[in-house]
Amino acid sequence: MTTRTLLLLPGDGIGPEAMAEVEKLIAILNAAGAGFETERGLVGGSAYDAHGAAISEDDMKRALAADAVLFGAVGGPKWDTVPYEARPEAGLLRLRKDLELFANLRPAICYPALAEASSLKRELVEGLDILILRELTGGVYFGEPKTITDLGNGQKRAIDTQVYDTYEIERIARVGFELAKTRRGKVTSMEKRNVMKSGVLWNEVVTRVGREEYPDVALDHMLADAGGMQLVRAPKQFDVIVTDNLFGDMLSDVAAMLTGSLGMLPSASLGAPDAATGKRRALYEPVHGSAPDIAGRGLANPIAMVASLAMCLRYSFAMIAEADALERAVAAVLDSGTRTGDIMAPGCRQVGTSEMGDAIASAF
Amino acid sequence: MTTRTLLLLPGDGIGPEAMAEVEKLIAILNAAGAGFETERGLVGGSAYDAHGAAISEDDMKRALAADAVLFGAVGGPKWDTVPYEARPEAGLLRLRKDLELFANLRPAICYPALAEASSLKRELVEGLDILILRELTGGVYFGEPKTITDLGNGQKRAIDTQVYDTYEIERIARVGFELAKTRRGKVTSMEKRNVMKSGVLWNEVVTRVGREEYPDVALDHMLADAGGMQLVRAPKQFDVIVTDNLFGDMLSDVAAMLTGSLGMLPSASLGAPDAATGKRRALYEPVHGSAPDIAGRGLANPIAMVASLAMCLRYSFAMIAEADALERAVAAVLDSGTRTGDIMAPGCRQVGTSEMGDAIASAF
Ligand SMILES: CC(C)[C@H](C(=O)O)[C@@H](O)C(=O)O
Ligand SMILES: CC(C)[C@H](C(=O)O)[C@@H](O)C(=O)O
Repeated sequence: MTTRTLLLLPGDGIGPEAMAEVEKLIAILNAAGAGFETERGLVGGSAYDAHGAAISEDDMKRALAADAVLFGAVGGPKWDTVPYEARPEAGLLRLRKDLELFANLRPAICYPALAEASSLKRELVEGLDILILRELTGGVYFGEPKTITDLGNGQKRAIDTQVYDTYEIERIARVGFELAKTRRGKVTSMEKRNVMKSGVLWNEVVTRVGREEYPDVALDHMLADAGGMQLVRAPKQFDVIVTDNLFGDMLSDVAAMLTGSLGMLPSASLGAPDAATGKRRALYEPVHGSAPDIAGRGLANPIAMVASLAMCLRYSFAMIAEADALERAVAAVLDSGTRTGDIMAPGCRQVGTSEMGDAIASAF
Repeated sequence: MTTRTLLLLPGDGIGPEAMAEVEKLIAILNAAGAGFETERGLVGGSAYDAHGAAISEDDMKRALAADAVLFGAVGGPKWDTVPYEARPEAGLLRLRKDLELFANLRPAICYPALAEASSLKRELVEGLDILILRELTGGVYFGEPKTITDLGNGQKRAIDTQVYDTYEIERIARVGFELAKTRRGKVTSMEKRNVMKSGVLWNEVVTRVGREEYPDVALDHMLADAGGMQLVRAPKQFDVIVTDNLFGDMLSDVAAMLTGSLGMLPSASLGAPDAATGKRRALYEPVHGSAPDIAGRGLANPIAMVASLAMCLRYSFAMIAEADALERAVAAVLDSGTRTGDIMAPGCRQVGTSEMGDAIASAF
């Protein structure tokens, strides 16, 4: 029997509650022989409280060794004043950077049962299924210099640096084209080439990779601001959107909110396949945050975390049948009218986090 | 009689058609003694065709000397391959920078007659009236280095630099607080302090200016990605949003699209008041672009350009009664069911650019 190691990093806020539901599903998979071995670690504020850092060196080693990482959420008002280098987000950013998880897949899908929950008109989002592919280890998130300097006279100067090299754009573009081939065959690349040099290079490299390596995939370019508008106006025009780290952060959040399914959306962050084994490092996390306002009260919607496990089964372990079954279980539970508070609707039955997890487990 | 000089820069695409309707209104104002003296200049692709630059030195001098600039739109496929330094947008960016127009006011209002045109549900946008205040002369738009370097081996490196100094954040924050005092008394500042040092400084300076100088204005902070989500989820929660150049570009476009009134939205870009005269440099422009697909066919909606003139009357010339009257004229024409193609609805009467301009002129 293969051993598959999973590192669980529940993090802060509603992270641990959501992760507990995922553990029920892992137990079911193991009972059927999946052979998952799970370890547990700390990240974010909870790691800071325990170790004074947003992730410990030990947990970083575990993450580097694991087949995949399942990540909950980080942050909360309790840690608003910790030193910048130890803020909860630093743990997540270090994981992304040190595991070289350059490809962040953020599906924005609208669950039919939830189309009414979108702030957009039903006909604009019903059946929506787009994928935002965000570059995750470059750009303004990690470029140097990144400093605040005291200029004297009460003046400071803050600097952040957006840097992209050709190879970084090439590899994310290739992931985008490959994904598009398994979907509707269309890539839209977004940047601000009219203002940013990184946008000029981005556009040039994506265009060349498309022309030379993926002539059968349709490629469009859109300025990122216009792209934000078009997401709101007519999101179904897109298939795969490929964009940089910061634009991806903004655009994927807008796209997620459009679906009305924010509490339901997973994401996958993938590294390059290892030359020898073909394995790629990977981290899976919900798109939603730590929601400190409802944390610890059994109210959180665990579906995004569960859907992250489904992505993990699909992308890290090629357990396609199990991934499909899990996604069908989620859809069935929603269709049956079982809802957590965030997606409650007239005529449905409101449940808490663990009841929702149990319902998915029994439908699985 | 005071002389008031206006520089008209119609630009490319639908810019000239929209500007022609504004000229009708200026003529009406002059007949009533307003004393506007208008000059005309070229910007964008049309300036490139005439002078090989996106704006000539002569027109820059006229812009610096004018009391206000009315700007149409720039760009189009014809100029997609001109050298980077001469691309149409460079004319607009130079105007913003050399006139030191650091404060960009982008109202996102939903005209009652158009609530149905929004992709959002009517109840979420009906009555919407928010103001995005975007910093316009700093950040990643102008920071140096801004380069593409050849690294050899087929690799290039692109760099853009986000720079903000304390004074730049202070002055835009003050404009935001002042505007909030004339509105609903609430400022929301947006940045990414969890990732960007410029966000940390932004947050710190806005907080201090608020506490020390505007204790009566309510101040909130939101991460820019969450801000984008909240704009889609519940835009009416905001009054004035203050944010940097790049986030402002993204967020104001999303907000504009939410209203369903994209073809109707004006913007004002203001400099600092002159110490001696109190006058501030100013440029007014529609939020929409040059729409090359419909240019030259008399189809464009001139209302955003007309509303930009109304903002000009209000902010540059303190002609409040005239500004109010012009905005009422626009609303009356819409209420009467007169529509250009972009905002056409069942039961309305479709007209072209100049008929729309004439209808506004007669209601004015
Ligand atoms: C928590 C934060 C650092 C992170 C980001 O900005 O990337 C989050 O917003 C996200 O999108 O995953
Ligand atoms: C034309 C372009 C340079 C400009 C910008 O990015 O600022 C436009 O998108 C805007 O928002 O005014």
